Amino acid sequence: MNQIKTIEWRNDSLILIDCRELPMKEEYLVCNNYNTLAMAIKNLAVRGAPAIGVSAAYGVVLASIEAKNRDKESFVDYIKKAILELSETRPTAVNLFWSLNRMDNKLNTLLSLNNEDIKKELLKEAHKIYNEDIKTNIKIGIYGNEVVDLNSNIITHCNAGALATAGYGTALGVIRAAHKDNKNIHVYVDETRPLLQGSRMTAWELLKEGIPSTLIADSMAAHAMKLNKIDMVIFGADRIATNGDVANKIGSYSLSIVAKEHNIPVYVAAPISTIDPNISSGDDIPIEIRDDREIIEFHGVQTAPNEINVYNPAFDITPSHLIAGIITEKGILRPPYKLSIKKALEF
Amino acid sequence: MNQIKTIEWRNDSLILIDCRELPMKEEYLVCNNYNTLAMAIKNLAVRGAPAIGVSAAYGVVLASIEAKNRDKESFVDYIKKAILELSETRPTAVNLFWSLNRMDNKLNTLLSLNNEDIKKELLKEAHKIYNEDIKTNIKIGIYGNEVVDLNSNIITHCNAGALATAGYGTALGVIRAAHKDNKNIHVYVDETRPLLQGSRMTAWELLKEGIPSTLIADSMAAHAMKLNKIDMVIFGADRIATNGDVANKIGSYSLSIVAKEHNIPVYVAAPISTIDPNISSGDDIPIEIRDDREIIEFHGVQTAPNEINVYNPAFDITPSHLIAGIITEKGILRPPYKLSIKKALEF
Repeated sequence: MNQIKTIEWRNDSLILIDCRELPMKEEYLVCNNYNTLAMAIKNLAVRGAPAIGVSAAYGVVLASIEAKNRDKESFVDYIKKAILELSETRPTAVNLFWSLNRMDNKLNTLLSLNNEDIKKELLKEAHKIYNEDIKTNIKIGIYGNEVVDLNSNIITHCNAGALATAGYGTALGVIRAAHKDNKNIHVYVDETRPLLQGSRMTAWELLKEGIPSTLIADSMAAHAMKLNKIDMVIFGADRIATNGDVANKIGSYSLSIVAKEHNIPVYVAAPISTIDPNISSGDDIPIEIRDDREIIEFHGVQTAPNEINVYNPAFDITPSHLIAGIITEKGILRPPYKLSIKKALEF
Repeated sequence: MNQIKTIEWRNDSLILIDCRELPMKEEYLVCNNYNTLAMAIKNLAVRGAPAIGVSAAYGVVLASIEAKNRDKESFVDYIKKAILELSETRPTAVNLFWSLNRMDNKLNTLLSLNNEDIKKELLKEAHKIYNEDIKTNIKIGIYGNEVVDLNSNIITHCNAGALATAGYGTALGVIRAAHKDNKNIHVYVDETRPLLQGSRMTAWELLKEGIPSTLIADSMAAHAMKLNKIDMVIFGADRIATNGDVANKIGSYSLSIVAKEHNIPVYVAAPISTIDPNISSGDDIPIEIRDDREIIEFHGVQTAPNEINVYNPAFDITPSHLIAGIITEKGILRPPYKLSIKKALEF
């Protein structure tokens, strides 16, 4: 099912497809220590909220391998330090904290074991997170497919595909499921400036799977909607507040507003782990501000004067009133979200 | 006043700043025949509705120089052929047709003169169009400045500056006037995918003039608006229907919708010659579809898989109900536009 190997554990190393080089090069990055992985998360070699969460879990395992010859106290300290440092790589996607928290809790139950057994159990837990992510995505696909009409033109923003998860994808999981169900869908792909995850990854994934698609610049979506070329919007999420506000790649908010103007429903596809029970409104979700160079150049080619001031938020918040439904592995959450999210978290 | 020489007539040639290479290189293109100019319009070495209009007028003069040794009938035929071919370079900006039509009408009044005198009169008319364009822009700046509040944060899309006109600019003319009037303004510049006229030209012009500005990706405008960073929108126009619908660079419509969502007024700055008296609604304005490569690569760097299907409209239509006012050299036109535009055209 998962043709694209985004994340793979092999020979005590984590092997990641390097998302920065796609689609021009299909290169793999071998991480055999947690620092290399932390750097890979920071510099976006691996990206996408679920993929970051899964990778970070394996990062904890890498730390346990690095420190295996230390005495027990130093061994545990080293892993705890790795968990802390991995949590500081990126601020917005909550799956990172969720996954590291789960690994930390697991570690706390293992303290009576020897180093080798602790490592084995941590690896089991990481594999579990990995496998759960794929299963979750497949369930999201099944539920999401229910709201995709025959012959739909679906627009998606950024990459919430196999490359953003352990495999299959969230928003692209729904699209994969609808395509497999012969719904004769067609996908508009927002290129997603500044880092072009749409052009470079989503377009690449859809081509690989033979799902009909058309690439546009982000600013073209409204025009395409006005010409009745688009029936629904689906994108992923980096963090969801308990009131249903959604943090996702910059441009998701803009896309949701123009969809509303054209009466086109907006669906968010994300695992329950993307919901942050401690955040009650999108206003409280920290938004990562990234480097000016992402706007001033592309792949080494300058696109703006060096001296220009830049504002480069990596995410925005789509308020819940613009969202028709949040597609999760537990079904589609509907407004009022405070209630449906509360139920989903308790369930 | 006009530091940037976008268009200059010198030694029987038209010298254009090559907008494709900005801001990395400040190169000039010398056109000494109308075919070279037609190619420069087609491939966007010169762009921006008023600049296209002014250049095309000089293109007619170039044709008269090329054919000066022919007999009168062949001479006039050659110029008429040039007018036709120049009119086929780009479909959306009406200033091109307006300007060529004006040159054609002028030519028809000159048929009793000898070739050399016809050329001289055509050159006079082209110079007149050039000078009128600068005067018009300055008037647009004066009227537009009236609606700019002190300490405003203004967002603009694409480049409607000196580089898009004979000089000074329409939307940037308003910004220049407000800056000169010490209104302490700050400008958000949409980078304007796919061809990055914002990053490459508007950012460059504003830096040259010391007008405070910040570059963003197009999809960031809505987020910036939500954070109360933006007070008004100003952009130019390629063609305006008599009901006030505005064709402008792709993304203008999207920007106008997100501005409405945040109660931010949208102003269009354009000369009266941008109004097409023969088009009663934006639906009837032809939208140029440009090459796929503009989306698949940037300056030779590939950004998407080669096999991907692309949709690349160069313009969109902002319906008049989203527009607070159209700033022209005859004052600011206000809704209902059918009435205010009718008056402006008669006046």
